[in-house]
Amino acid sequence: MSKIRAGDSSGVDAAPKRDFGERILAMAERLAAHSDSPSGLECTVLRPAHRATAADLLAWMGEAGLSAAIDGIGNVVGRLPAANAAVRTLVIGSHYDTVRNAGKYDGRLGVLAGLAVAEELARRNVALPFHLDVVAFAEEEGVRFLTAYLGSCAFTGRFDPEWLERHDDDGVRLADALAENGFAPTAIPSLSRRSDLAAYLEVHIEQGPVLIAEDLPVGIVSSIAGAVRHAVVITGVAGHAGTVPMSLRHDAAAAAAEIVLLVERRCAAAPGLVGTVGRLAIPNGALNVVPGRCEFTLDIRAVDDATRDAASADVLAEIDRIAARRGVSVDIREIGRSPAVACAPRLAAAFEQAIGRAGLRPFHLVSGAGHDALQFDGICDMAMLFVRCGNGGVSHSPLETVTAADVDVAARVLLDTILVLAESWRSGTPVITA
Amino acid sequence: MSKIRAGDSSGVDAAPKRDFGERILAMAERLAAHSDSPSGLECTVLRPAHRATAADLLAWMGEAGLSAAIDGIGNVVGRLPAANAAVRTLVIGSHYDTVRNAGKYDGRLGVLAGLAVAEELARRNVALPFHLDVVAFAEEEGVRFLTAYLGSCAFTGRFDPEWLERHDDDGVRLADALAENGFAPTAIPSLSRRSDLAAYLEVHIEQGPVLIAEDLPVGIVSSIAGAVRHAVVITGVAGHAGTVPMSLRHDAAAAAAEIVLLVERRCAAAPGLVGTVGRLAIPNGALNVVPGRCEFTLDIRAVDDATRDAASADVLAEIDRIAARRGVSVDIREIGRSPAVACAPRLAAAFEQAIGRAGLRPFHLVSGAGHDALQFDGICDMAMLFVRCGNGGVSHSPLETVTAADVDVAARVLLDTILVLAESWRSGTPVITA
Repeated sequence: MSKIRAGDSSGVDAAPKRDFGERILAMAERLAAHSDSPSGLECTVLRPAHRATAADLLAWMGEAGLSAAIDGIGNVVGRLPAANAAVRTLVIGSHYDTVRNAGKYDGRLGVLAGLAVAEELARRNVALPFHLDVVAFAEEEGVRFLTAYLGSCAFTGRFDPEWLERHDDDGVRLADALAENGFAPTAIPSLSRRSDLAAYLEVHIEQGPVLIAEDLPVGIVSSIAGAVRHAVVITGVAGHAGTVPMSLRHDAAAAAAEIVLLVERRCAAAPGLVGTVGRLAIPNGALNVVPGRCEFTLDIRAVDDATRDAASADVLAEIDRIAARRGVSVDIREIGRSPAVACAPRLAAAFEQAIGRAGLRPFHLVSGAGHDALQFDGICDMAMLFVRCGNGGVSHSPLETVTAADVDVAARVLLDTILVLAESWRSGTPVITA
Repeated sequence: MSKIRAGDSSGVDAAPKRDFGERILAMAERLAAHSDSPSGLECTVLRPAHRATAADLLAWMGEAGLSAAIDGIGNVVGRLPAANAAVRTLVIGSHYDTVRNAGKYDGRLGVLAGLAVAEELARRNVALPFHLDVVAFAEEEGVRFLTAYLGSCAFTGRFDPEWLERHDDDGVRLADALAENGFAPTAIPSLSRRSDLAAYLEVHIEQGPVLIAEDLPVGIVSSIAGAVRHAVVITGVAGHAGTVPMSLRHDAAAAAAEIVLLVERRCAAAPGLVGTVGRLAIPNGALNVVPGRCEFTLDIRAVDDATRDAASADVLAEIDRIAARRGVSVDIREIGRSPAVACAPRLAAAFEQAIGRAGLRPFHLVSGAGHDALQFDGICDMAMLFVRCGNGGVSHSPLETVTAADVDVAARVLLDTILVLAESWRSGTPVITA
């Protein structure tokens, strides 16, 4: 069978409508069966469910006709190679790790959309002017090691060697977890920055209510909000719950409670600003002991960095005042910072063209969540396509839903966007440099 | 050697001063070497450190000349029997379990003072008109199974069979933990109420600053504050930390934070009232997830029940208002309630007499903490002797301290109080009915 050139219309409608959607949802369902928790979906980096998920993805990529392998941190990479080995690569990616008690679509939907579309391109024998890599990133959520984007940072050559020393809640170092999984920890930081990438596209559930309100199955991301993250430890004085008068207490949890409400209040004060204390614990707490220590995380995001930094500065200054007033000490460590990043207008225009060709209204929206796409900023052009979720847009929860019809639209738009990019190359005005 | 009758002065000063104190502190030090945590003292019921501690106590009781055994829940009981087997029993007790990251003296000091004094009575061959039982209770702190007084309730025949179904954080039922330790769970609730007890005395560190302020090594407890304890679960809506606007959140941890501050504020409003949120957790929390669930404990105490109940009612009503305003649901379960209990004036008078004979000022104070002594209310007369702690009276903390000199005074007062009780019996006006 001879290769069909991208842009040829033959075979484009060979697959019956909704085929992509139902197939992708079935695969997401199957991946969700791998969990490290009996009570909900939990797939954190380098644990058993994670290995089982990677194994499924690797097998599926092979069956789809891709040349597939697992890289040195657990990213699953499947390539549909161009005829000319010297061309650059278009990457379609997202992550396969999850939060705890997660939904089935955060991250995985983008991986599986990429996989289904690449499979379709392989099936149609389409000749692309660039290599097409479908990548399932090993870690984006930051659950296990209180970091994030481990997979995409390793893939792009931006992995910080310090991360290898981070510990999980059981005291296991990332370096040791990698070694236990058969990976060479020291090999990852030594990877150099990728210069062979033409562009990065990511399909992702919106995780918010905007597309519901717009009555649209998909939307084009214009930019991704920046985040700043801190780990905070309050040290007060432990004491007996029955004998230390209220006036003499230095209760670490009460100080933390005051800070939680401060974050809530300050981050409600500007539109597009959000602040979250997502982890909070009294280590070794007992019902009859005044808490002497309290640990929590702080995550502040905004669409523009100035808004975010002003809120973060206000919160940190007020934490110091609360600590001084209560006679507790505070240790605050910045554990992550990402600037707000704009998506490439040329790629957004390609999405717009494909959406228009599908008879839909192109709509642009902002991402409040960070995504693997962030790690491609400065490496190559990147853009994202959001898919409408149900249940009011809830995510990071078992209530996360998408419809097969919306997923089908997203996959078809992704497929057509790849064809648009290929066409532009053929027409002599390439959107991306292959 | 013929028995010396209680009240004979011969041999009373045979032991050099501070012998008791240094010996007791050395034993406390040795017990503190058994811990289930590498980073501090942790001895919770039916775990390895607990078994090792019981084994030491059993051996020491045997060496002290007591007839010693471990009962069906892990209480270590050593008896100095009276010549007449039909008489009733004076119990000297306290507990040997600890909180997490505990001090060395909470509970154990009273056990070891009883042990040292019984050893001295055995050494002097004193004939008592009652059996003397030294009891190390297996559990008082309520850490592992969110209950408390398991040891003294089993000992007095007040064990609630429902407790056998309680689970620890690992999902282990108390019944199974007992069976694993070779105990028969069903045997404990079937024990009938003790009617053979003459009185109960307990020596305990004060765990507060009053005796420091009074410049006294020991004080007589007049009454023990009552406590009411609740376990609270807040259920909100989990969501993505980057995409759910602040105005649409139902953050379970923010609701809990508001409640923590409410408890702090309300319980500061009356003297002798204290309120504590000692455990607080966001199960499966992640830094980028709006908390959908938050669990915490609530402990409110006061010297009089009316003050405590008024505060508890206000807090529970306000929790409902907070939950309604925030659109979260609340499950509140009462997990413990003990009324304020007065110590027996006749026993307090015996302590007073012994303290006076030691050349010290008798001083009465209230206990803000609950103690095993509470479980003897309604069973037999009970009284307590507090020992001054250092470091401002801190307890439930590695900073807990006592001096050998103060402990020596406490043990001598305990010894002399037993002799006072014995004398009263001989003189025909017994303070306790043997």
